[in-house]
This record gives sequence, structure tokens and C-alpha cells, in this order.
Amino acid sequence: MNNFLSLRDLDREQVVELVRFARELKANPIGDRLAKKVIGLLFMNPSLRTLASFQSAIGQQGGTSVVIQPGAGSWSLEFSDGAVMDGEAVEHVREAIPVLASYCDALGIRSFADQKNLDVDLADERMKKLAGLTEKPVINMESASDHPCQALADWMTLDELGIPKDGKFVLSWAWHPKPLPYAVPRAALTMAAQRGMDITILCPKNYNLPDKMITEAKQLGAASIEHQHNQVTGLADAHILYCKSWCALQHYGKPIEEMENRAHLRDWCVQESWFKNAKKDAKFMHCLPVRRNVKVADEILDGPRSVVIQQAENRLHVQKSVLISLLGGGN
Amino acid sequence: MNNFLSLRDLDREQVVELVRFARELKANPIGDRLAKKVIGLLFMNPSLRTLASFQSAIGQQGGTSVVIQPGAGSWSLEFSDGAVMDGEAVEHVREAIPVLASYCDALGIRSFADQKNLDVDLADERMKKLAGLTEKPVINMESASDHPCQALADWMTLDELGIPKDGKFVLSWAWHPKPLPYAVPRAALTMAAQRGMDITILCPKNYNLPDKMITEAKQLGAASIEHQHNQVTGLADAHILYCKSWCALQHYGKPIEEMENRAHLRDWCVQESWFKNAKKDAKFMHCLPVRRNVKVADEILDGPRSVVIQQAENRLHVQKSVLISLLGGGN
Amino acid sequence: MNNFLSLRDLDREQVVELVRFARELKANPIGDRLAKKVIGLLFMNPSLRTLASFQSAIGQQGGTSVVIQPGAGSWSLEFSDGAVMDGEAVEHVREAIPVLASYCDALGIRSFADQKNLDVDLADERMKKLAGLTEKPVINMESASDHPCQALADWMTLDELGIPKDGKFVLSWAWHPKPLPYAVPRAALTMAAQRGMDITILCPKNYNLPDKMITEAKQLGAASIEHQHNQVTGLADAHILYCKSWCALQHYGKPIEEMENRAHLRDWCVQESWFKNAKKDAKFMHCLPVRRNVKVADEILDGPRSVVIQQAENRLHVQKSVLISLLGGGN
Repeated sequence: MNNFLSLRDLDREQVVELVRFARELKANPIGDRLAKKVIGLLFMNPSLRTLASFQSAIGQQGGTSVVIQPGAGSWSLEFSDGAVMDGEAVEHVREAIPVLASYCDALGIRSFADQKNLDVDLADERMKKLAGLTEKPVINMESASDHPCQALADWMTLDELGIPKDGKFVLSWAWHPKPLPYAVPRAALTMAAQRGMDITILCPKNYNLPDKMITEAKQLGAASIEHQHNQVTGLADAHILYCKSWCALQHYGKPIEEMENRAHLRDWCVQESWFKNAKKDAKFMHCLPVRRNVKVADEILDGPRSVVIQQAENRLHVQKSVLISLLGGGN
Repeated sequence: MNNFLSLRDLDREQVVELVRFARELKANPIGDRLAKKVIGLLFMNPSLRTLASFQSAIGQQGGTSVVIQPGAGSWSLEFSDGAVMDGEAVEHVREAIPVLASYCDALGIRSFADQKNLDVDLADERMKKLAGLTEKPVINMESASDHPCQALADWMTLDELGIPKDGKFVLSWAWHPKPLPYAVPRAALTMAAQRGMDITILCPKNYNLPDKMITEAKQLGAASIEHQHNQVTGLADAHILYCKSWCALQHYGKPIEEMENRAHLRDWCVQESWFKNAKKDAKFMHCLPVRRNVKVADEILDGPRSVVIQQAENRLHVQKSVLISLLGGGN
Repeated sequence: MNNFLSLRDLDREQVVELVRFARELKANPIGDRLAKKVIGLLFMNPSLRTLASFQSAIGQQGGTSVVIQPGAGSWSLEFSDGAVMDGEAVEHVREAIPVLASYCDALGIRSFADQKNLDVDLADERMKKLAGLTEKPVINMESASDHPCQALADWMTLDELGIPKDGKFVLSWAWHPKPLPYAVPRAALTMAAQRGMDITILCPKNYNLPDKMITEAKQLGAASIEHQHNQVTGLADAHILYCKSWCALQHYGKPIEEMENRAHLRDWCVQESWFKNAKKDAKFMHCLPVRRNVKVADEILDGPRSVVIQQAENRLHVQKSVLISLLGGGN
């Protein structure tokens, strides 16, 4: 493993081993496996969990983290090849990435989707390009269409909860005041598929996920995958409701159209009544941050179904597992 | 001691012991008492001293600090229970605090007063609520109506200066271009009262502090407490002038009225002539930052009365004392 | 060496020794020479390289860095003596610097030119004043008219490249969408002069550098120094083209006039054709960040002449050398 850009770059056994090692580290969090290592964390977009969990993971193992936020204390960056840089951007990533890499043993990069061109975003072209600018290990801290650190933490959480490998995993759409990209839905689908789960995508009728993502999930090992549009039916016998919002395919890159399109869908806010036919102790998952009483009701987040804090905590352990594995700190 | 939210949560002996330990650490600043500990520092408001002194204290004892600034690189936070989060705030503190706590051994939190409701601010409801969201130790890095780290550094400074336990402590109002809350005045009163001092509050006639704070100071052990409105009289025989600005009670939450109210009070800028009848070597204290030639004249800050740098340096030592005490690093 | 404010404060042997030690540290980057040391990094202006390379250097040697950004998470600072601070600035540097210094073993300070008064900027009055506010070692992380960390990294890079001590060093102007100060040109001239090089300043006719800088370079040991205005002639037999933009002397502090003045100079963008008569393997240097296809064509930055990443990496090593030398970590 040279980079950690997507679970799809790994085979199932590699993922299982990363999770196993993360659980070992959760039991024994402190050590010197990253002693004197320097990890650069480059955030093109805001963060709470990712920033704090990486810094904590690095510190608990004796390393140093360096945080760079272009446009907020650091120079604005240009991404386009051949650009004539006479505008706002002061530095090109073709310099910024190799320079940062020269100070660091590994780089984490967060760069959300532009939401202009679906194919470019689904190909995750920017993250691949950025990672290609250095030979140092690069970790995807959320890209245009992936979030593998979250996916790994989710896998670990499912294992801890004793959810069967082929349990029923429902990825549910929810209303949100902004159109969001496919990063978390795709990472969650990838994870559930590689784990071999029975996958249902629960969403309003015109919010089906791109065919590419469905085909991909089948190839990765999903026991089954289908769309459902009724909450109670879709959640029948479900072990997990994984909540996320995304933009409808036909309005990708057209935020005004998209918001009009979803104006009548504010009742897509997860609540207890949806779980009528689910497994009795079905769990609610979300990658956070989550808008309370918009995507999910307080009754769920404050009740026994919610495992969102456990998911978030596991970010710490899986990222430590990834970092040590990439940097050869042994296990 | 599970949290460090206010000196009022401690008895006098506990405060004396924290100061004693801080002085020991000032003599021997370097060690491993926080080795591999991770301290989260959550700033809802700006900081120079608090940020730098905590990070230095943690680093000198082998720990790691993680800084989170909602709205500046991190998600904007919602505080209200039951909120329908379809506006600016992206994450609720009911998730943010437990998640951050799961990565850290202790949390420092700064959250200034809203200055909307005096009773809510004086009860320090927000800080108590935030601290209640985790079982990890929480340190108040300045709240709606308290600033115990500053109070502890001030106590230590008074001891170093040899000010008698029952010396005369004058808390003086000063003009400021913005209405400020009661956090520092209350922390200073609490400290001086617990130390057993003779307290004078020196202020324009309609700037008397809330009765609740006066009663509280008496109960905490102030040798005496009174308001005075003439600078020379108020400072007669004083050992200390502690300078701070605050909003008049009757205009709390009404900034335009308050600024009109104080328009004629710009001469409340501390200067040497005020000290005519004070102790010969009476000292000037201020928690910083301070607006020069607005709250206090250069002649004071640049002269022998000022101990503001010593107060600020002691933040380093007392916070180290608090952190080690909370985290069981022994002394 | 008590501070590191300018190469001009050192004699040639001291500079040579700092570079020698930096090369030793490049070969052996990890150690405990800054163990438990705390370095404050005060940025009045944005940074990528300086921030990341200092933090990495400190972490690789066991120290802690504390980053303060006034106006972005920390209080806005006032610089003027005697100011009546009733405006935006909340804290004066006369408090901020001594307080920060009390938490740290050394301070790095970045404070760019105001570009209002040329004499003030060329005298580097602000940086000297800031450094004078503490007895702790201060490192200039780029000031009104100097950038000694960059100069030291450039010297090291020239040595690594095997450029003769008296090789031909061409400092070339380039078009830029904003008027920039003399910090890097002066640091580069100082370095090349102290190294004993043959210096050409290549620029449009009204962009000659101030006489003070030319006289200074002669006194520092430049083998020769002259202005040239034709790119091919100016670069004849050159070993190095060092690219930088600066404001014309006669428009210093008048940005609108300056931009009109340079409107016809957009062809001052370094390209391969300029090197027609240069040494065959002449190198391109730039301190970064650089605006691609504005100051220099992609063909140069992506081709074999460019050593900009090597220059940037050497910031890490020279700053480590400076820090350890200042703090007595031995070598």
C-alpha cells in the first residue's frame, strides 16, 4: 500500500487487516510507532473530526502534524494545468504539493467536489492528480467522490456492533439545505459492498444513484443492491440505516434547479416511525457533521439507535492504522 | 477535581495548592507529566495568550494539543437544544463535544457571553452545558461570566508580589469602544474574595456590578467589599488597581444604548494621577489584551506599576498545574 | 548570534557554518536537539513553506511550535507607539511580543512591508522594533526588506549545485499583478554578494533597484554588480536566473501608478528563449509561491532548469540549523 486514496485500491483482505490493526490500536492507543514522523494535513475545505482525529492519532504515536489551509493563513492554490495565474490563486499545486511533501513523511489531502462535471468528480481526477505530484504516501481525507477514512471507520463500527457480513445495509437519502456530492454515499457503498452486505438505497424517486456506482458495488461483492422509495418498506429487516444527502443526478452542478426539485422533500428527515419493520435494534449511522431535525430527528440522535459518536471515535483508530501501515511502523 | 470551570467550584485550599504547584512548575518547567496526552482546545472566540500558553504548557510536558476554531477552518456550531438546523450552523455541540472528547484526554473550551440575557450569562449556562456533554475533564478558557485560568494566574502574581492576603484590591472600570461582559470582573472578584482581600469596585455611578456578584464575593471570604466612584478616593491605600471594562447592568444586551451612556466617560483611562493616595508601589494589573491610551495610558503600562506581562506569563504555569492535576500526572 | 534577522548581521564565516550545519542536518534530519523547546511562529501575513518547514524542523528535533495569526483566530495587533487604540486593533505589539516570548524559547516573526515609506521599509524598522521587544532569540520569517531564511536556503542550494563562488547570478524582474516589496530581491542580493558572485540585475529600464541596495552589495563582497535591460544579453554566461518581481522605485507606495507603469511589461515572463547565451545548464531559481505563466512559463518550471523545489526543501534544513544554533543545541 503506497497511498490510501480509496478502499477500492485495496483487496478485501487488506481492508480486513487495517480494521483488525485499528482494533488492536484502540485497545493500546499510545506508542512510538510514528516517533519523529511529520504528517502534513492539507485542507482545501473545513474539518472538525478529520483534523482532530489525525492530529490526535499522530500525537499519541509520537509524531508531529503540520496543518495547511489554503486561503486561510496560507496561499490560495491553482489546480488547472496551463493556467495563466494572474487572478486570485497565488501558488500552483504543482509546486505546493511537492514542497509540502519535502517537509513531511506523508500527506493527508482534503479536496471536495467542484460539482461542475459529474464524470470528472466520479473519476476523482483531482485527488489522483494531487497524489501523483509526490512519491510520499498520500491519504485521501475526503475527495470529490470518496472518503475512505470514514468508510474504514464505518467497517470497524459494524464489526464492533456484531452486524453480520451479509446484514442489510440501507443507505438513505435525507433533505439538506445544500446540494451535496457523492463522496460519502460512494465510500459507504464501497465499504458495504466489499463487506458483502445486502444493500438498499432508500431515496425519493428521482434521487437514484449513478449506474456506475451500482455496477461498481456489485463488482466489489455486494450480496445484493437495489433502490427503494418507501421508508418503511425499504427499511424492512434492516440492520443499519446510513443517512446521507446527495444531489439528484439530473441536476448535478445546477444548485438552483436542485433546490427547487427537493423543495417538497423536507419530510425526508429520519425519524423513529421509519424503523417500524426494521430489525428491533437497527442502528442509525451518519458520518457527521449532521444537521439536527433537518436530516434526522433528535429522537434518533439522542436515542439508542445512534452510533454516530462511535463511528467518529473510530476515525482515530483507523487513521492511526493507515498511517502506521503506510509508514512502516510495523504492527 | 473533575473539571476546572470556576474557582468557586474549589475550596480555598485547593486553589492554594494549584498555585503552589504552579510556582513549583515555574521553577522546573520541563517534564513528561503530560507525555502522549492529547488536549483539545476549542475556541469559539479569538485568543493569543490562552492559545499560546496552553500549547506551550502541553508541549513542555510532552503532550499534543489540537486546536479547533468553529467557523474558521472548522464547521460552525449550533448550541440550542431542539434547533431545526437549516441555517448557517452545520454541526451541533451535542455531537461536536463528545466527538472531540473521544480524541482527547481533556478539553479546553472558550465561549464568550452572548450578552443577550444577563441571568443566563451570570449562571454560565452554556459552559456548564458544554462541560456536561463529556465525562472527560473540561477547562474553562473564558466563558460568559468566568475566566478561572486568568484568576489563578492573578492569585499567583499577587503571591509573587508579596501582596498581603487582606491587601486592598481595587477593580476599576475603564472606557472601551465596545460593551464587554462580566467574565473577567467576576473571575477577579472571585479570586480576590477567596484570597480574603479588601475589595473596592471603582466605577462611574451607573456601572455598579450586579448584586449577585457582590453577595457572592462576601460569601467567598472578601474582608470587605464596596463601590467607589472617585478614582483618587477609591484608590486610597490600594495595593492593586485591576483594570477592566464592563457593560452597565441596565444596558446589558443593548449595545447602542450602552455606548451612548458611556460617551462622556472617556476620561476613565487609568493614569498616574489616579494613584495619588495609593500605596507607594501599588501595582497595575490587566488580563490583556488591553487597548493602550483608551483603557490605560502608556505611562502606566511602560512604567514600574505594570505587572501585566508577569500575569500573562503565569497563565503558562497555572494552566500546566491545572492540566497535570486533572490528568493525574502527579506532583 | 542572538537573533537571525538578516545575513548582513553575520560575517561570511558564520553564514558558511550555518550552511555546513544545514547540510549535515539534511543527511541526518532526526534528533532531540530541540527537545521540549517551544518555538512561537507569529504570522502577520500568509505562509505555506515557512509555516510548514518550521513546524517540520521543530518536530523532527523534538520541539513544539505555537502558531499565532493576528486577525485570524488571534487579536489584531497595533504597531505604532503612542497609538490611541480605539479602532480595530485590540492588542499592541508591546504586550503581544513579550507575552508570546514568555511562553517560548524563540520567536519567528513574519511582517511584510507596509509599502508606504521606502526609507522605513529599507531600514527594516518594524522587524528591528519587534525583535527589540524581547530578549529571546527572534528569527526573521520575512520582513519589509529581508528574508534571510530564504537567502540561506538559496546559498545552500547554490553550493549543492556546484555553482562557483564567483559564478554569474542574474536577479531578474518579472511582471506580477501586484506591486511587491524589496524583501526577496534584497535578501537574494545580500546572499549573492556575501558569496562573492558576479551579479546582474535584469529588469525593464525604470525598474533599477535602489542605490542603497547596490552599494550594500558591493560592500558585502559582490565580485561585480550591474543593471541590464535586455534578457538575452543580461543572461549571457549566467549560471543562475533568480526570478522576482518588485515595485519601481518612483512608484513605491502608489499601486495604481505602478500597475499602469508596468501594463506593457507582461512579456517579462521568464521563458526558455531568454537563456540563449546563458551557461548550457543554467538554473532557474524562485523563492515561491510563483504565478505560473505570469512570472515564468510552464516550460521552465517543469523543465530541467528549475531548482525551485530543492530551494524550498532546503528551507527545512537551514531553519533547523538556525534554530539549533540560536538555542545552543550544539552541533
